[in-house]
Amino acid sequence: MDKILRIDLCAEGGPKATVTDLGNYAGMGGRGMTSMVISQEVPADCHPLGPENKLVIAPGLMAGSAASTSGRISIGCKSPLTGGIKESNAGGQAGQVLARLGYAAIILEGQPQSDDLYTVFINKDGVKIKTANDLKGMLNYDLAEKVKAEYGDKVAMISVGPAGEMKMCAASIAITDREFRPTRHAGRGGVGAVMGVKRIKAIILDDSGCPTRQPKNSDKFKEANKLFVQGLKSHAVTGQGLPAFGTNVLTNIINEAGAYPTYNFKQGQFKDVAKISGETFAELEKTRGGNPTHGCHRGCAIQCSGIFVDKDGKYVTKQPEYETVWAHGGNCGINDPDAIARIDFMDDNIGVDTIEMGAAIGVAMDAGLVNFGDAEGAIRLLEEVGKGTPLGRILGNGTAATAKMFGIERAPVVKGQAMPAYDPRAVKGMGVTYATSPMGADHTAGYAVATNILKVGGDVNPLGIQGQIELSRNLQIATAALDATGYCLFIAFAILDQAETFNAMVESINGMYGLNMNGDDVVALGKKILSMERDFNKRAGFTAEDDRLPRFFKRESLAPHNVVFDIADKDLDAVFNW
Amino acid sequence: MDKILRIDLCAEGGPKATVTDLGNYAGMGGRGMTSMVISQEVPADCHPLGPENKLVIAPGLMAGSAASTSGRISIGCKSPLTGGIKESNAGGQAGQVLARLGYAAIILEGQPQSDDLYTVFINKDGVKIKTANDLKGMLNYDLAEKVKAEYGDKVAMISVGPAGEMKMCAASIAITDREFRPTRHAGRGGVGAVMGVKRIKAIILDDSGCPTRQPKNSDKFKEANKLFVQGLKSHAVTGQGLPAFGTNVLTNIINEAGAYPTYNFKQGQFKDVAKISGETFAELEKTRGGNPTHGCHRGCAIQCSGIFVDKDGKYVTKQPEYETVWAHGGNCGINDPDAIARIDFMDDNIGVDTIEMGAAIGVAMDAGLVNFGDAEGAIRLLEEVGKGTPLGRILGNGTAATAKMFGIERAPVVKGQAMPAYDPRAVKGMGVTYATSPMGADHTAGYAVATNILKVGGDVNPLGIQGQIELSRNLQIATAALDATGYCLFIAFAILDQAETFNAMVESINGMYGLNMNGDDVVALGKKILSMERDFNKRAGFTAEDDRLPRFFKRESLAPHNVVFDIADKDLDAVFNW
Repeated sequence: MDKILRIDLCAEGGPKATVTDLGNYAGMGGRGMTSMVISQEVPADCHPLGPENKLVIAPGLMAGSAASTSGRISIGCKSPLTGGIKESNAGGQAGQVLARLGYAAIILEGQPQSDDLYTVFINKDGVKIKTANDLKGMLNYDLAEKVKAEYGDKVAMISVGPAGEMKMCAASIAITDREFRPTRHAGRGGVGAVMGVKRIKAIILDDSGCPTRQPKNSDKFKEANKLFVQGLKSHAVTGQGLPAFGTNVLTNIINEAGAYPTYNFKQGQFKDVAKISGETFAELEKTRGGNPTHGCHRGCAIQCSGIFVDKDGKYVTKQPEYETVWAHGGNCGINDPDAIARIDFMDDNIGVDTIEMGAAIGVAMDAGLVNFGDAEGAIRLLEEVGKGTPLGRILGNGTAATAKMFGIERAPVVKGQAMPAYDPRAVKGMGVTYATSPMGADHTAGYAVATNILKVGGDVNPLGIQGQIELSRNLQIATAALDATGYCLFIAFAILDQAETFNAMVESINGMYGLNMNGDDVVALGKKILSMERDFNKRAGFTAEDDRLPRFFKRESLAPHNVVFDIADKDLDAVFNW
Repeated sequence: MDKILRIDLCAEGGPKATVTDLGNYAGMGGRGMTSMVISQEVPADCHPLGPENKLVIAPGLMAGSAASTSGRISIGCKSPLTGGIKESNAGGQAGQVLARLGYAAIILEGQPQSDDLYTVFINKDGVKIKTANDLKGMLNYDLAEKVKAEYGDKVAMISVGPAGEMKMCAASIAITDREFRPTRHAGRGGVGAVMGVKRIKAIILDDSGCPTRQPKNSDKFKEANKLFVQGLKSHAVTGQGLPAFGTNVLTNIINEAGAYPTYNFKQGQFKDVAKISGETFAELEKTRGGNPTHGCHRGCAIQCSGIFVDKDGKYVTKQPEYETVWAHGGNCGINDPDAIARIDFMDDNIGVDTIEMGAAIGVAMDAGLVNFGDAEGAIRLLEEVGKGTPLGRILGNGTAATAKMFGIERAPVVKGQAMPAYDPRAVKGMGVTYATSPMGADHTAGYAVATNILKVGGDVNPLGIQGQIELSRNLQIATAALDATGYCLFIAFAILDQAETFNAMVESINGMYGLNMNGDDVVALGKKILSMERDFNKRAGFTAEDDRLPRFFKRESLAPHNVVFDIADKDLDAVFNW
């Protein structure tokens, strides 16, 4: 992982690949790498779809090694959705494979002059770029089949579906999983639109002949990794809840807490929650011959992903994540797990963020296009997205766009990005993260639900205002650092609660790189990343006014707790005062 | 003009009217009034379509008096298009009539709880508010016919078409002219959407029995007004060019200067300019029995409006303005005056801003929806807007929205508002105004074309960078003050060139109000208004980054002069350093 691959899309005669050394990016990985490159190389005031924007794909620092659960890959750019800096990360195989190929980053630069579409193939021998106009408009699953026929299923793929090619602001970038299915997505912020406008349909990664990355201090690394895995296995969330039910274990928990946004954020509980809970999904999967316990990449110790099948046991989609089940389920009043699974498959296939898409459909339901609860209606709307009709373009450009086009105030967004599955009025720490994260509304940027509701890493009353700023601040810092390592965010449950697991994680990095970092160094890394991101956004024109929730969250109270979002603006403005 | 009418839309039992005195708004009129009310009463961070926004309608300080050419009416709100403060003004009869009725402002407040639509009727006896659900979706011309049947044609009307009811960001507010036609529009910034969301379809004003407003110092006023009119008549622009050809006299001039944005701002000259020039339109009108010389309101000394008729002499629309002919003509490669006139009528009827609409169609042509030059295609797009189809909603929400929905970088907008008919690369003073005006890209906010190209009020090379900041600054200040008076902006040509006409204008105000203002006081008023507006925008989250042109104007050179926009950012940031 000592080189960077730059692909110049506007070179004479078609895209040109150049390999350089790391330069001043040495020591950066994942979100640290993507945010540093964007911050230093992209003019903050450029148009996200213009030639000055870049797309940066970076495995985490621990990727490609034997470190457990370290498969996250970060994708960064100036976001077409938020207009600010963006890092969106995903699981799947690509992070590990890219790291073993030795690349700390792939950077797509410039804008092609023609409408040709390309694929990039990377193996130990180098980089091949091919025109691939026959792939134009191809769905992600069809694309995976076609690539599999040519390259086998041992490769990994990073691709965009039709939404990315159409430059939609909800377009995701798909990463293939262990079964070479395009099920893991860098979903948020429209990163797929930037890959689409660069006209790269797919990057195919083949690490045959590339060894696992070796640690500098093998003994230290091995010992740390062992303790780390033990810690993950022994914690209730990472050792039991997530493996058994996946992230959708949260549906019952968040609904019980009255923080489950229902009918486009009008209520905090959904009457039909039992029909779409993680328990229900897992039971269906088990009964039908699917699998609720499965890793999205090789080497995962948590195994929170899964396989959802239909009544005949036939593959439908990966086990839908909690936020997906919420976005297309309770948020839209839809209570049918099979319909939700079908929609999840469509999202992955078209290549759109399930959160942004579900929230946009919720707004469309508020605008009267389809009734709440109408699953077939939601599917029809999604078909429009895939086809790129005018209505599809509205929805495919996200929640804020949908609200604007239909003249609706009720757009649950921050910095133009849709809020995920936690109502900020009833989980106020989450509200602080939504408001202030440089990424826009993003639960993964500082998952206060952990401490507000799951009581991991402490106990801060979700309905109170006390302690929320500090909680969000600390989580945002820790997350930024974690997103640089490639370790999955879900290890946070174990490392927040168990000091020895946190130490083991730090030691695993020390062992890998021959360092002597401690907890303070991790905090310093997190602060450095956040500061770069905040600085970029400031240069892009963001102010404190962008660190706010929409006013209706302050005006309308949420049942059953009848609470509004009442964290003071001045307190929000203090989140990054460290 | 010593009272304010407030209409509370969310009052129990339906909208409720209250009349108050002027309070601290005394002495304010037009844009001074609208911007002060919005600045003081509307939370800068509210949603433009939410209950906290207000719509303020204010005649100018001289309206309703015998002062010539003082018929402008200002309409202000937080703009759904720009997200900042907005003042959009129009001619027509309403300003004069509202002033004679004694109202310095009408303020629409709150949000109705039901979907009922209302009309407001105001005469000397008071205010009547009626439900008017039979008017839902009605086109402006049909509405005028219906209102005429009930109230006669001596009243004035302020109304929204279907676009306003649909809360589109390009929705205008129509003002009837001398013939009770809805031809004069407060077009810019989506003010119609705010009237629409307040559910007021029309305000009907009847000044029967209301005398002309009398000056405090009658002799001074009469003498000043006489000199003022003489000045207008003797200047080449206001005395000859505008009366003979209307504003469209500019087509040949701006094209000759290489500053005529063609094919969505790709070139600076249009090959078919002769087919759509002011001279061509005036000739057609004369030959066919229309009228190129006509005032949009009673008491106008310039008479730049006109009547466009078809081959059979039948009314088609008012004489289209230069910016309309450009937006739907050269900008879209359309060269047929009859098609442009038909589109102008459709815009007025649906109730959309012709500039925003033409620029949006230009972007749609760039996106490949319709070919450049295809007039029937453009008409089909506009029909979609009227019907409120998804495509119509995209276009009806303006240029930036259209570009975003179709993934196009080339959106010629500032602060989300479309640029008018002057390419900022070839009229750089205009570019400075576009970039820095609190209103978004707006030629009327500081019409540097006057000095850059028409050589009125001096001579600043349009292609150079020298002197542009000062030029735009001075014009923005003067314009803000002028927009408070109700005097038409077109008097600027005469008052910039002729000191005695400027003095006469100031003296007419002194005579009317019994004041002793001088030029410095006018400047102070302009600065006060701009400062309030800039402060509102700052509180709404605007920064220096919002005072920029899109990057493609700095990257792509414009033929025939092959110039880019090269005014430095730091110079733009100095516009308001006075």
